[in-house]
Amino acid sequence: ERVQVVTDRLGGSRFVGGPDYVALSEQTVRTFLAPLAEVSALLGGDATQWTVREVGDGNLNLVFIVKGPKGGIVVKQSLPYVRMVGESWPLPLDRIFFEYEALKIQSAAVPHLVPKLYHFDRGMAAIVMELLEPHLILRKGLIGGIRYPKLAEDVATFAAGTLFATSDLGSPAVVKKERQSLFCNNITLCKITEDLVFTDPYQIAPMNRWTTPQLDGVAAEFRRDSVLKVAVQELKWMFLSRGEALLHADLHTGSIMVTPDQTRVIDPEFAFYGPMGFDVGAFMANLLLAYFSQSGHATKGDDRR
Amino acid sequence: ERVQVVTDRLGGSRFVGGPDYVALSEQTVRTFLAPLAEVSALLGGDATQWTVREVGDGNLNLVFIVKGPKGGIVVKQSLPYVRMVGESWPLPLDRIFFEYEALKIQSAAVPHLVPKLYHFDRGMAAIVMELLEPHLILRKGLIGGIRYPKLAEDVATFAAGTLFATSDLGSPAVVKKERQSLFCNNITLCKITEDLVFTDPYQIAPMNRWTTPQLDGVAAEFRRDSVLKVAVQELKWMFLSRGEALLHADLHTGSIMVTPDQTRVIDPEFAFYGPMGFDVGAFMANLLLAYFSQSGHATKGDDRR
Repeated sequence: ERVQVVTDRLGGSRFVGGPDYVALSEQTVRTFLAPLAEVSALLGGDATQWTVREVGDGNLNLVFIVKGPKGGIVVKQSLPYVRMVGESWPLPLDRIFFEYEALKIQSAAVPHLVPKLYHFDRGMAAIVMELLEPHLILRKGLIGGIRYPKLAEDVATFAAGTLFATSDLGSPAVVKKERQSLFCNNITLCKITEDLVFTDPYQIAPMNRWTTPQLDGVAAEFRRDSVLKVAVQELKWMFLSRGEALLHADLHTGSIMVTPDQTRVIDPEFAFYGPMGFDVGAFMANLLLAYFSQSGHATKGDDRR
Repeated sequence: ERVQVVTDRLGGSRFVGGPDYVALSEQTVRTFLAPLAEVSALLGGDATQWTVREVGDGNLNLVFIVKGPKGGIVVKQSLPYVRMVGESWPLPLDRIFFEYEALKIQSAAVPHLVPKLYHFDRGMAAIVMELLEPHLILRKGLIGGIRYPKLAEDVATFAAGTLFATSDLGSPAVVKKERQSLFCNNITLCKITEDLVFTDPYQIAPMNRWTTPQLDGVAAEFRRDSVLKVAVQELKWMFLSRGEALLHADLHTGSIMVTPDQTRVIDPEFAFYGPMGFDVGAFMANLLLAYFSQSGHATKGDDRR
């Protein structure tokens, strides 16, 4: 399976993998990793001793966990389409380039709150990075009723550290403008956020999904509420025009991996220069969702109060 | 005089002329223009019949008026330093590239309010454009007490037309983001505006100038006024972070050429994506300056009331 040029949803065809881009498989990941000295040293042994498991549960990417005699790593590779929808929704492979660039910047600001980077291959649209173990996706932990006493402070530190450092408050003019110029090219993923957060929920749109028929009335209320629509369009305007800082831009509880002691923010492929409040608001909104869902997860021994 | 690499004030050296960049002179302009078919046709005759006059009264550029038997044109060329200060203040030649890109975009939005473009040579950092005659620089007209009945409507149309068209309200996401990515690289000129408008006037700074000793007290008041400083820093934050639309970004009465019937906005070399209010505010502030200076220009026959 060779993919060289990808037509994105907005009509561009600028986003291409390298001429040698091939989607990796559990079989070919070893061959991809074997020439990388640092990675081989981390895994230990030789490639025949490495085990590979594809665990991508997201929508957009392949994720391989590779383990060797000494340790483990993760390989994340972009697919040229939205995984759950299929080839009918092409997506730029180059989004992983923006993820890599964002991770580098976040690593400089808050190294203890993001995964370590080991290798990046733009042509293959793949990042090799730290295996987070035994970390859970925060969303699963919250559904499971686990308490995370360090979470609030860690996410606050992540937001404060990355947002300040990349803003005009924390960067020289040259650095900020060059970064903003780069991330302005993460066009397709910004447009997805714009559509899915600020446009679609307030009208009939093919990507909308809700529990039906139970919530049909609530969905209809959203579509009828002109005051809400005007308020949301004000927020959309801010989202599009306020390049205050390099946002993670997808900071929900599915983008955070945790143990009770450690917090790691992952998956900044939607990164762009936007309003600081977007990251903070997205995270707090996800905490509210988790809060209101707790009663639904209550069991005899755990009332979730 | 050959200049290939220019170290800008911010420490970058990315801004270079072509390897063949040479500052033009009244002598060499003819040789530069002669191969350009459209320009030659506009001027008429042959190069030996063309007259050339250097008229650049600005700080940053060479400006030549070239006239032939049939018509005239203007050649504007960047110099690699601030003209009035000299080679001790280097400036990126590439600013004329941003001027050219901004002029193209403005031409599409409000063709009747900007000069026509005939030719652009990036290596030579030169634009060939329409000769505006008998237009005056608006500032001189206002000092001369001339009335411009169409000015308000024309500048309003320029601002509304260019700002709306280049914003997220008037552009598809791809077009806006690609333009913003490009103009983010106009770093040095943005930094000059930031310093000269939002930083220097409120502190002791080498570029500050005022009528001394008469206005020493006013200047000192500016430096003491903490409330003013806080308010101006809020405006600086907006200037730096709100990429609402492609601004002219230097829309003072020296950037507008007029007759009583016609208005042309020139010199958008400071163009970048910023807050719409900056263009509108700069123009209105210049009108206020002109208004308050009128009594100083009054003569027996013209009280300037």
